[in-house]
Amino acid sequence: MPIEHSIAYPPRDMARINEHYAKLPAGYLFPEIGRRVRAYAAAHPDARIIRLGIGDVTEPLAPAIVEAMHAAVDEMGKRETFHGYGPEQGYDFLVEAIRANDYAARGVDIAADEIFVSDGSKCDSGNVQEIFSSSARIAVTDPVYPVYVDSNVMAGRTAAAGPDGRYPGLTYLVGNEANGFQPDPPSEPVDIVYLCSPNNPTGTVATRAQLECWVKWARANDSIILFDAAYESYISDPSLPRSIYEIEGARECALELRSFSKRAGFTGVRCAFMVVPKGVSGVGADGKRVTLNALWARRHTTKFNGASYIVQRGAAAAYSAEGLAQTSAQIAFYMENARLLREGLGAAGFTIFGGVHAPYLWIRTQHGASSWEFFDRLLGEAQIVGTPGAGFGPAGEGYFRLSAFNSRANIEEAIERIRRGFR
Amino acid sequence: MPIEHSIAYPPRDMARINEHYAKLPAGYLFPEIGRRVRAYAAAHPDARIIRLGIGDVTEPLAPAIVEAMHAAVDEMGKRETFHGYGPEQGYDFLVEAIRANDYAARGVDIAADEIFVSDGSKCDSGNVQEIFSSSARIAVTDPVYPVYVDSNVMAGRTAAAGPDGRYPGLTYLVGNEANGFQPDPPSEPVDIVYLCSPNNPTGTVATRAQLECWVKWARANDSIILFDAAYESYISDPSLPRSIYEIEGARECALELRSFSKRAGFTGVRCAFMVVPKGVSGVGADGKRVTLNALWARRHTTKFNGASYIVQRGAAAAYSAEGLAQTSAQIAFYMENARLLREGLGAAGFTIFGGVHAPYLWIRTQHGASSWEFFDRLLGEAQIVGTPGAGFGPAGEGYFRLSAFNSRANIEEAIERIRRGFR
Repeated sequence: MPIEHSIAYPPRDMARINEHYAKLPAGYLFPEIGRRVRAYAAAHPDARIIRLGIGDVTEPLAPAIVEAMHAAVDEMGKRETFHGYGPEQGYDFLVEAIRANDYAARGVDIAADEIFVSDGSKCDSGNVQEIFSSSARIAVTDPVYPVYVDSNVMAGRTAAAGPDGRYPGLTYLVGNEANGFQPDPPSEPVDIVYLCSPNNPTGTVATRAQLECWVKWARANDSIILFDAAYESYISDPSLPRSIYEIEGARECALELRSFSKRAGFTGVRCAFMVVPKGVSGVGADGKRVTLNALWARRHTTKFNGASYIVQRGAAAAYSAEGLAQTSAQIAFYMENARLLREGLGAAGFTIFGGVHAPYLWIRTQHGASSWEFFDRLLGEAQIVGTPGAGFGPAGEGYFRLSAFNSRANIEEAIERIRRGFR
Repeated sequence: MPIEHSIAYPPRDMARINEHYAKLPAGYLFPEIGRRVRAYAAAHPDARIIRLGIGDVTEPLAPAIVEAMHAAVDEMGKRETFHGYGPEQGYDFLVEAIRANDYAARGVDIAADEIFVSDGSKCDSGNVQEIFSSSARIAVTDPVYPVYVDSNVMAGRTAAAGPDGRYPGLTYLVGNEANGFQPDPPSEPVDIVYLCSPNNPTGTVATRAQLECWVKWARANDSIILFDAAYESYISDPSLPRSIYEIEGARECALELRSFSKRAGFTGVRCAFMVVPKGVSGVGADGKRVTLNALWARRHTTKFNGASYIVQRGAAAAYSAEGLAQTSAQIAFYMENARLLREGLGAAGFTIFGGVHAPYLWIRTQHGASSWEFFDRLLGEAQIVGTPGAGFGPAGEGYFRLSAFNSRANIEEAIERIRRGFR
């Protein structure tokens, strides 16, 4: 190549960016919460703030997982046992543990090549929309986990948000007290619906009958359910389904997302998986059916290089006898926190939803306060951080999310402060 | 929600899939190599196959990295030092190590909030196209790392591949012996160009003058360079730039991708980063300039949840005095392999490119053999697996990639077999 390079081009526009990003509001929920908490802490340096906002675990990794990860690190330090690139879909030892424990043991037949290990459900839930047409019609619940919405806005499936914060082009299914925060299937045809049960943010859980209704709807309409079961391990009632594949016909219409984040304390470790049964298909531009399994395999192998070997060894240890016992004890600990919060806030006069099969409580604000007003009051008067329901969509206005992830002492202190300050 | 749900919808199409995936050929390069190697191994069960195909490291993790990861696992096992969700952009301890060692120490001013830690350069190079318009005009070199091409095909920026394997809509810049596999900037205007130096697959490296030419071109045309420097640590000549930001003006037109995969043996551990300087911008639909830093921050925080804490601690240890010495010794080991391969194959009559500042050798096949013919011959006659150049694009036809990642004994044995079988 000549060093003095001087091709003359006609004047032209500069590189065009993805114009759909501009449709997203500048302020995201958790940064705004962080800003208000920092401002309060700066003005009140002695305040002991209790954080029940972001749904992040607080218990350390289980000993069985720590042991497995140490062993994996040692393997990586020796030439004979070193692991380079692994299979993009995940190592057999983890895929098989998932297949056997999460599915076969519950009578659900999922094949190894229908399981795709990843570095997190946030990634999976943000990336899965890529395998659908840009013209696919998407339904989400309101309130909703924001990634489902934002990733579809970024992909150009909506117009800019209206004054109510909703994006034209999306179908919103409102969860409210009348329907127990479990909305019906849409009355207009949609291609894809995101469901989350146990639900983030409302902490409510879909019954078997409700999931049967969804599967029936999806099959009748050739629609696809993206079922986010990141909190399934918090279900204690054996009559409630933990997987959508416990519902007949779901293997033909549903993808399921699961995570080790809340089940094994992996929010900082990063491991999750998505199940894409070979029975689920969509239609291409030529009218031919294509399995989503083939599409997702292509996406996963082209743009992802497998989760860390060390992390996958840790995740697999969550399925050992010790690992199961230890992580179950952690979940029981958080759910006892949730029970205490429910009782304490109930005694303080609050109306509460969720928190029975999920680590989240969904609280109706008092005296008609907006959820941000309630946020400011709870922070200012009780030094407790929660999440305003309006941050999860317009239908979250007037509600507030509290997380049960914290130490017992902090949960008890939070309850005491709320009792004192909010009677 | 009523249990008996029976909304009647009009008959309609099923969920539409991303129709652009169908433009990708079914067979991907490395699966096809795997298929041929398995078939050969099944027919020749006694053959001792030497794998110089996939560019995967073979040396174990450096002791300093192993030690740091053990310490991080222990931290995760104790409540007081447990880490949940981390900052999506990466922990300060790693970002600061990158900023200071990779940039400031070479006289390059990169700010902490211009560095985005991720779980791999494959992900970054596949995801970065999302922040550009679907109408953005993309240029790639030929031969090329396939992810650059495939991720743009999947995003709908091309038509289906033609009979020559090229996708209409992409601009191809041919690397050949005449230009030393370092093609000139395109003669037609393009918005974005992917450059990789040291290059995968050709093992050649761009000089300072060549990079200056690219930056000058990009600035003159308001184009953006996506500079993949995953192999920068294999550059030994101090006069060669290891970062595009060593070139004046690059902070206004270039993003840089780097990885710990080949520099610290992280192919199975997973850590990388992308630099997105605030001086680089594109134009929105409204004609306003938007910084790519803001766009990538939005993408990264919406669809990614940070690299594993344990992995980031390991990556940071690669910057300690011990970590640097140990990983440098590994790179020197691989580069001695590359030197031996160059000498051995040269003595056997081959014409060789690359392999001086990169762990890849780019070999001209003999007697006009196609690269797949050469693949079959090398496997059949010498039991050596390499990568056919045609797998990296039409301009790779007639060439072959060998990797220097292997044990010394295997490299020496491979050279001996080639000498015997290919004289």
